[in-house]
Amino acid sequence: MFSFSVTATDKQTGARRGRLVTGHGAVETPTFMPVGTRGSVKGVLPSALRATGAEMILANTYHLFLRPGAEVVEQLGGLHEFMGWDGPILTDSGGFQVFSLSELNRINEDEVEFASHIDGAKVRLSPAIATAVQNKLGADIIMAFDECVKLPSTRERVRLAVDRTIRWAAQCLEAHKNEHQLMFGIVQGGTDRELREYCSEKLVELGFGGYAIGGLSVGESHDEMIETVGYTVPMLPADKPHYLMGVGTPRDLVAAIGAGIDMFDCVMPTRNGRNATAFTRQGKMKLRNEQYKLQKEPLDAECDCYTCKNFSRGYLRHLFQVGEMLGPMLLSLHNLHFYQWLMNEARLAIDENRYGSWSSRWLADD
Amino acid sequence: MFSFSVTATDKQTGARRGRLVTGHGAVETPTFMPVGTRGSVKGVLPSALRATGAEMILANTYHLFLRPGAEVVEQLGGLHEFMGWDGPILTDSGGFQVFSLSELNRINEDEVEFASHIDGAKVRLSPAIATAVQNKLGADIIMAFDECVKLPSTRERVRLAVDRTIRWAAQCLEAHKNEHQLMFGIVQGGTDRELREYCSEKLVELGFGGYAIGGLSVGESHDEMIETVGYTVPMLPADKPHYLMGVGTPRDLVAAIGAGIDMFDCVMPTRNGRNATAFTRQGKMKLRNEQYKLQKEPLDAECDCYTCKNFSRGYLRHLFQVGEMLGPMLLSLHNLHFYQWLMNEARLAIDENRYGSWSSRWLADD
Repeated sequence: MFSFSVTATDKQTGARRGRLVTGHGAVETPTFMPVGTRGSVKGVLPSALRATGAEMILANTYHLFLRPGAEVVEQLGGLHEFMGWDGPILTDSGGFQVFSLSELNRINEDEVEFASHIDGAKVRLSPAIATAVQNKLGADIIMAFDECVKLPSTRERVRLAVDRTIRWAAQCLEAHKNEHQLMFGIVQGGTDRELREYCSEKLVELGFGGYAIGGLSVGESHDEMIETVGYTVPMLPADKPHYLMGVGTPRDLVAAIGAGIDMFDCVMPTRNGRNATAFTRQGKMKLRNEQYKLQKEPLDAECDCYTCKNFSRGYLRHLFQVGEMLGPMLLSLHNLHFYQWLMNEARLAIDENRYGSWSSRWLADD
Repeated sequence: MFSFSVTATDKQTGARRGRLVTGHGAVETPTFMPVGTRGSVKGVLPSALRATGAEMILANTYHLFLRPGAEVVEQLGGLHEFMGWDGPILTDSGGFQVFSLSELNRINEDEVEFASHIDGAKVRLSPAIATAVQNKLGADIIMAFDECVKLPSTRERVRLAVDRTIRWAAQCLEAHKNEHQLMFGIVQGGTDRELREYCSEKLVELGFGGYAIGGLSVGESHDEMIETVGYTVPMLPADKPHYLMGVGTPRDLVAAIGAGIDMFDCVMPTRNGRNATAFTRQGKMKLRNEQYKLQKEPLDAECDCYTCKNFSRGYLRHLFQVGEMLGPMLLSLHNLHFYQWLMNEARLAIDENRYGSWSSRWLADD
């Protein structure tokens, strides 16, 4: 059911083109997955999302576990049917949200107990539970439950998380019961090369369908992140997909692709869209600015998204000024389209063995 | 540029089929206009709005006058280009909003001074200003500036508003400078037959491109409203469109069509949609109810809208429970589609001379 093949490799960078096949279709890599946190990519109809060029999307185990619950999603036909997305879906493990959103009550070798960020209710999550929940949700790719620490942290703290992540990874593999789902392991280790190496080695020994780099974009600089990605990717099997979780800006993506990353997810296009910030070929635009008030031109003259084909900057600014939902909707749509366009350009550049020169423009951006 | 023709009349009721032609296309009547208050039908992309079957939409002069201002809309190409809607548009006069939303400071024979509901700023509106603003906005159909009173009101109060509405109507016609726009007059008079007759007579003497019945759906019962519509329509020229402003429920629409109304606008489909209430062939559904939690079926099995074709009641309930924007988006879309379906069914019934029997089911509804 699953396969991953690298179809081209850029000669001067680590960038690679590939194709990931799942039970719900194939994905051209490098790929960017829009985030559908609670079973919806915020403000975007699935048909419009498809039209942006998105092939695979992500949903959050933690959020769906709390509401409506995995059983409800399962009884409503599983995540694909539930959210009206018939393409590939990936669910994260919940680890990142448990450690970033909720108040931790207790953490031990077996499980985490935390207070729900919604109502403070005590909830437990463990490798076995996170896996069972993801089995019920029914995404194509599921993630091993990991511990993610904020940066900076002490080396001891990061090491503790790495040890726990490795132990939990084994438990997740053991608990995983659904052959229609491919499980990825998550490499932790902060910005510590030895810890990343240790974690990678142990996870590769366990044997996963793909490998994610977690624990980045959690407080470190762009350069630290890319350096970490740069030395971690070669520690991972070349014949498996490499996924950089929760990243990032166009510059982050372009740099990470150059280091050999195949998959990304990030809330940036939608979150920025809701906050009136557009990504364009000319950089970011803050649509509330007075300067756009009378501008008849589209956000980005080269963009062929629905928003740019139909609306002026002045209208978009008006929508945000008066608080109309259509503003966030149109800007999220544009930003998602922009991210997919960027991935498509990156794929073309790799196919044509010119990734280094293509990427330089984006790497100079802030 | 403009024409209106009645193409069929139901033998047993006052219902009639017609066709209203504008510079931005034709509209089959009876027609329902979705409301794009501030230049956007809330939560609906224009392309999706078109797909519901909507032909003409309404925008609010009062709201656009305050923000972004008529000059801004004009400089951004006029309302059609501004909001990305190339079909016919109607703007109301602002009268209803001035008298319902804002705090009135002063009203005299020439103008109204009120405090903006946004920031309390003093703003003036008059027949001449309301007409000039609508000329700049550039809708296909514009409305004479009227005074709308809440019901119940004393006869003296209603009579005062009628006198003012008649005087203002003459001033609006005189101020109207744009031959690409057809101006409608608004009949006021509450639920008082004599006042409605007096107002109709005077407006018809002035001569408008169409006639609206205003001042209803402002506190009176369904029966009072329909009775008023029933005796007012025959006071209006049969060869001009009849527009019932701000109405209403499916039952209101069906009853008013039976009395000879051709045009409607109302925020109900979108406002109810945002508040988790769906209109269906089986009546209203409140989607937050626990009973829908595990229901896999669509809102309305007979509906072929995007929402019903792709999503379960359980998913829609989930979206509202967690506060995802997609809930209001999908339910607004369905409700608008439902209203357009209802209008289409009504038109078919009139064409086939069976409006009486067709309408009975809806008239029994609450």
